[in-house]
Amino acid sequence: MSNKPSIPKGTRDFSPIEMARRNYIFETIKTVYRKYGFQQIETPAMENLDTLIGTGGDESDKLIFKILNSGDYLAKADEGALSEKNSTALTRSIAEKALHYDLTVPFARYVVQNQNDITFPFRRFQIQPVWRADRPQKGRYREFYQCDADIIGSDSLLNEVDLIKIIDEVFTELFQGKLNYTVSINNRKILAGIAESFGISDRLEEMTVIIDKLDKVGMDGVSKELTEKGLPAEIATFIGSVNQDPDAITKVKQQLQKPEIGLKGIEELEYVFEKLNQLNNLQTANLVFDPTLARGLGYYTGTIIEVKVDNFPSICGGGRYDDLTGKFGLKDVSGVGISFGADRIYDVLLDNNLYPEFQGDSTQVLFTNQGEQDEQVFLPMLFALRDAGINAEIYPEPAKWKKQMTFAERKAIPFIVSSNQEGELFVKNSDEADKVPFNTIDDLIQKVTA
Amino acid sequence: MSNKPSIPKGTRDFSPIEMARRNYIFETIKTVYRKYGFQQIETPAMENLDTLIGTGGDESDKLIFKILNSGDYLAKADEGALSEKNSTALTRSIAEKALHYDLTVPFARYVVQNQNDITFPFRRFQIQPVWRADRPQKGRYREFYQCDADIIGSDSLLNEVDLIKIIDEVFTELFQGKLNYTVSINNRKILAGIAESFGISDRLEEMTVIIDKLDKVGMDGVSKELTEKGLPAEIATFIGSVNQDPDAITKVKQQLQKPEIGLKGIEELEYVFEKLNQLNNLQTANLVFDPTLARGLGYYTGTIIEVKVDNFPSICGGGRYDDLTGKFGLKDVSGVGISFGADRIYDVLLDNNLYPEFQGDSTQVLFTNQGEQDEQVFLPMLFALRDAGINAEIYPEPAKWKKQMTFAERKAIPFIVSSNQEGELFVKNSDEADKVPFNTIDDLIQKVTA
Repeated sequence: MSNKPSIPKGTRDFSPIEMARRNYIFETIKTVYRKYGFQQIETPAMENLDTLIGTGGDESDKLIFKILNSGDYLAKADEGALSEKNSTALTRSIAEKALHYDLTVPFARYVVQNQNDITFPFRRFQIQPVWRADRPQKGRYREFYQCDADIIGSDSLLNEVDLIKIIDEVFTELFQGKLNYTVSINNRKILAGIAESFGISDRLEEMTVIIDKLDKVGMDGVSKELTEKGLPAEIATFIGSVNQDPDAITKVKQQLQKPEIGLKGIEELEYVFEKLNQLNNLQTANLVFDPTLARGLGYYTGTIIEVKVDNFPSICGGGRYDDLTGKFGLKDVSGVGISFGADRIYDVLLDNNLYPEFQGDSTQVLFTNQGEQDEQVFLPMLFALRDAGINAEIYPEPAKWKKQMTFAERKAIPFIVSSNQEGELFVKNSDEADKVPFNTIDDLIQKVTA
Repeated sequence: MSNKPSIPKGTRDFSPIEMARRNYIFETIKTVYRKYGFQQIETPAMENLDTLIGTGGDESDKLIFKILNSGDYLAKADEGALSEKNSTALTRSIAEKALHYDLTVPFARYVVQNQNDITFPFRRFQIQPVWRADRPQKGRYREFYQCDADIIGSDSLLNEVDLIKIIDEVFTELFQGKLNYTVSINNRKILAGIAESFGISDRLEEMTVIIDKLDKVGMDGVSKELTEKGLPAEIATFIGSVNQDPDAITKVKQQLQKPEIGLKGIEELEYVFEKLNQLNNLQTANLVFDPTLARGLGYYTGTIIEVKVDNFPSICGGGRYDDLTGKFGLKDVSGVGISFGADRIYDVLLDNNLYPEFQGDSTQVLFTNQGEQDEQVFLPMLFALRDAGINAEIYPEPAKWKKQMTFAERKAIPFIVSSNQEGELFVKNSDEADKVPFNTIDDLIQKVTA
């Protein structure tokens, strides 16, 4: 292999500076999650294919990366599928394992498998990569991180209040008040009520899918598709009248006078707003009721949440689901959760120049190396600095001065220690023009930690 | 699917307490790596199969988990292999990607691919899961974490010195001086010298493989196998005479009087010992020269290192390699690195009861919930505590007192806040018998942070 090596499409390497930025995002989210009583778990990258298949529909199944069985996998392959060359039919017989495509399904599996050891309500967070055999494109990867928090085993809407506060805390910290963002909230029960009020309860999912496209196709597009599908044109008019209307809640209530489920949704929504108001509201989040928010088909049954900044797709989303663990045999357990999209948040912070400097992450002091004499003098100092908790290194062999300076510059090392012919010792701060002499290790530590 | 769900053999879920312990190990290692100037990178879990195949020999290739191509993968399948039902031959045509089985090969690929952006010598660390289609058994998993640090692009033995100091720092921190451990060091050049001194340079690898089994089969086993393979019996006698001999270095030197490569190895070894001596040696590590240490076949060409505690397999290992990036077209770049086995270290700490308590990681304060009145009073306090950086939660719905106490106990929450009928407020520390009254939020914060 002599061609320049590469990595699979849709995957990425992360360089040191990229890692520092990503860690900053992860640490911010983790700290807030912990503050709210969430505990971290991890599940394997690989799940049994049976666990993953059929939870998100056929389209989702196609997005799952399957892992070829080890050894002589063809020995147990489905003969019929093989002779027909039917890839889909063959897969189950040659691939028993697969990579998880989200953290929600593995979490549901975890909860059921460990139900006797878990104390409910269970607040868990999970930050791991997920894999999707999607067509790679700008901002969409085949391997990316999700940062999920869920509370499972509690119907209380105080959990929704906590999740919205978490969103507010995380983005207040990451955006430092310099970037506007909208937290849209809706409730699946309201969408169900709307459908019922127009006499199309049996076509709720269709309606939801169409309304969900509002962002992409606009009001006209939604109207057109509703008509094409033979759904009442009044729905379009109604959606148009409440879209981005600050008084949407009143108008939706009027529409929902009869259907109980819709009013239940409104009641839940109002409870969340009321509690947040009592808590002096939010720091920087612009929380709005958006009756057009649908978040795909999914498994949501109550509250739905989505966070957006201008010019980017959703950076966080979530909602309440009433039967996530049903597939695995544990019925009637309600949960609610959110997921931060770390990769998109990464781009938002980069585009808006919102990263802090990451000095603590990298080397603070470089001892230059102009020969054996330097090594003798500098090695004990180097280890004394490290003992004092300072990130430090010595250039590992004598090299040209320029080479060592390029090294320091590219690694953004702020302090350079050197000696001269007379054996005098100096330290230079990259922010200052001149090097200054020092005599003792304590003197040096003081100068580099000042 | 109504059976109890499970996960693939050889994989594991990590519960909150297991995550806290694992994070403690990872954070300890990361902090030391950073102190020594190492920068973190990450590479994708998936690599092109071409990148991974053929770097570690046929046996290694079998351990690679391959990922089935998406879509109609049989359309491009190798017809011949299909009709012969030859699994091995078919794989390349239906699986272009695979999961990395270590972090060293992806790192070599990364270095070559990004060589123009990297400043050498490059100190990188990488902590990620790896996957091996090994037969699962106690302590051996199919998905496990490696914690690697390598310096690439420098021949200097100061790098070896740093790596041994890192090992000493990490285990001094993790073992707290309560557990003996041995850092064995050898040099591949010494093994080459021994082979040459017995006139079997052409059979160095065979000899190495046999000597490497000393731990498992004992001196007799080694002797027997050497004879069986027709290698000089004197090798066994020699190995026996230096094994665990504190004066091994002198004896090996005598044996190596002629072969230059062997003496070069001794010289390198002595340099490392000498530098460590000058630096007042190590804190807790017991560093010994072990001329029988071989560490498999691998790609090592100089120093080899292995760390052991009683009753466990190796918990850390590494060495110097001279041509890791050669496969990808970048020749003559020397590197040296170590890898901590996080999963084994986890077990060692658990067996020896060496984990600290992880209070900061979980909820510190639980507000109990006996109804709407409690929610009104406690919610503002809850958020005030979180604003003060204290991990806190409220039981999300009114529930029986016993249920809430069980929740607190199983989540190991140290402080419980409650009210009585008269609206008086109390906080109880789980270490103390009685609850104490408090009046203001400041009062509460003081009591839970005291």
